[in-house]
Amino acid sequence: MPRIALDVMGGDAAPEVPITGAAQALGELPASTELLLVGRAAEVERELSRQGVPRDRLVVVDAPEVVEMGEKPLAAVRAKPRSSISVGLELHQRGEADAFISAGNTGAIMAASIILLGLHPGVDRPAIATLFPTGAKPVLVLDSGANVDCSPRELRGFAHIGSVYARDVLKRKRPAVGLLNIGEEVEKGNEAVREAFTLLQEDPGLHFAGNVEGRDILRGACDVVVCDGFVGNVVLKFYESVADVFRDFLVRELDRDVLESAALQRVFKVLDYAEYGGAPLLGVRGVSIICHGGSPAPAIKNAIRVALQAVESGLSQHIGAEFASDGAAA
Amino acid sequence: MPRIALDVMGGDAAPEVPITGAAQALGELPASTELLLVGRAAEVERELSRQGVPRDRLVVVDAPEVVEMGEKPLAAVRAKPRSSISVGLELHQRGEADAFISAGNTGAIMAASIILLGLHPGVDRPAIATLFPTGAKPVLVLDSGANVDCSPRELRGFAHIGSVYARDVLKRKRPAVGLLNIGEEVEKGNEAVREAFTLLQEDPGLHFAGNVEGRDILRGACDVVVCDGFVGNVVLKFYESVADVFRDFLVRELDRDVLESAALQRVFKVLDYAEYGGAPLLGVRGVSIICHGGSPAPAIKNAIRVALQAVESGLSQHIGAEFASDGAAA
Repeated sequence: MPRIALDVMGGDAAPEVPITGAAQALGELPASTELLLVGRAAEVERELSRQGVPRDRLVVVDAPEVVEMGEKPLAAVRAKPRSSISVGLELHQRGEADAFISAGNTGAIMAASIILLGLHPGVDRPAIATLFPTGAKPVLVLDSGANVDCSPRELRGFAHIGSVYARDVLKRKRPAVGLLNIGEEVEKGNEAVREAFTLLQEDPGLHFAGNVEGRDILRGACDVVVCDGFVGNVVLKFYESVADVFRDFLVRELDRDVLESAALQRVFKVLDYAEYGGAPLLGVRGVSIICHGGSPAPAIKNAIRVALQAVESGLSQHIGAEFASDGAAA
Repeated sequence: MPRIALDVMGGDAAPEVPITGAAQALGELPASTELLLVGRAAEVERELSRQGVPRDRLVVVDAPEVVEMGEKPLAAVRAKPRSSISVGLELHQRGEADAFISAGNTGAIMAASIILLGLHPGVDRPAIATLFPTGAKPVLVLDSGANVDCSPRELRGFAHIGSVYARDVLKRKRPAVGLLNIGEEVEKGNEAVREAFTLLQEDPGLHFAGNVEGRDILRGACDVVVCDGFVGNVVLKFYESVADVFRDFLVRELDRDVLESAALQRVFKVLDYAEYGGAPLLGVRGVSIICHGGSPAPAIKNAIRVALQAVESGLSQHIGAEFASDGAAA
């Protein structure tokens, strides 16, 4: 029976929205799933009653402290050992939960995940992996914000981590990895990217598709796009805003009957990040999923679904094995 | 009478498309404008006859060599001193043309512009400045591809260059400059960006709006967004592809009568990069405009319009004055 720990104090509308997301997940996900709701117990109980959530597959775990969104990550993790983030991750670390999910302070989730779960041997740095929706199959982009500068070796590590995720969760048999660059030619890019190109090309454990440009990300040429967390984060947030801008624009320009048509609803569904849920922090020993602070309930529900897929596919174990065996850590 | 030199051998469909763009420009732009079409004279004459272009405000300037799209920029510029790129820029450098436009090999246009026109004193590196279309007023992003790594001082230079462009060409009175980063807080980003934040903040000659994230670019919070050429190029190409992906998606999903409606045509117009034309290489002594290799004729026409605006507003002179006077070069 998979057990998922959910930080219900994290996010802009906590604890209401995470609890609604949890209730939705219990309604839709396999009946074997159990959720551990981590937060200020009295507050959580009150909200559960208010929403009338059935209690049979829920456990409330008390965490008296809360890391606020604006706090400095590392300092907050150290100052608040009883925060919902730390208590939830400790449940996972002790094996009392199989995964952890939070829409709280991203930096604090990362820091606490690294401290409490640790990294798989051979992993230099964990990466946030984000699915970019496209008209066809989604594309995994990593790192999308955990690391501002990345060495060539770290970029190669992300290629391995992303390949395992693409196999386990996206069910791509032989994931093609592209290196994000400003041209297709070998000599393009800054020093780190040029060296990473050589490392990726020489790595027999990867299916390297070469350099890809910004325009290639959504074209589905690759399953996995590797980049440093600065450019990955900028492109991710830019894409989210483009979707919003386009949606607002369509709403302003088009008539109501067109907007409500099934066709346009399909367009909006692709633009809707809530469909995709959280982004996993990959490379840590365990399953730690980071959601947007502004995640609506369906995004929380989908993050729970992603966590479940990660647990059931053995994602973390496979990442550990990838680095233990095939030279990813060499 | 402004004279614009146009490389008609540059671009995927040269000389046909640049010549069509030139003809469109002569039909729409002020009657005082004269165009110098630079390329293999016999080929250009043949194409002018084939298209039946009126000859009264056109001069053909022979350039027997052509830099191909795939050639190494610097080597090609050196090996082909009679290329349409070098001949066109020399016309500009000698004062026989007031601006130069090409849809050819971007690297070669940059290299030849720097060599033949030179940089304004105090400018460390030129930057490609691109207008990002939004629902409201467009936003200037620079550098969008001229430099893969940028020092804090160079980023500050881009802020000054972009401010002058925003005043002269976009007619923004007091342009707000944002620094592209992965968070709003001062301590965010890599070392170059953190140092650039301090330089921008302390510069009395700039209206600095602080860090902006990927999601802020299209929201119109700033007139100018400053970043290194790696991230700028990735975001630019990504945006172009998003527009294509969305357009294809809408075409696939929506009925023909909706697609042909005035409302949706307005949406497509915003997505249409051809509306915007070329991107100027700013910081060189003169006006050098770089177009996409795939530019259709209306994009060439609009690049000619942009060149004209730059010439008439005294953009290059104002950039020179900005660096000579107010500490931008300190």
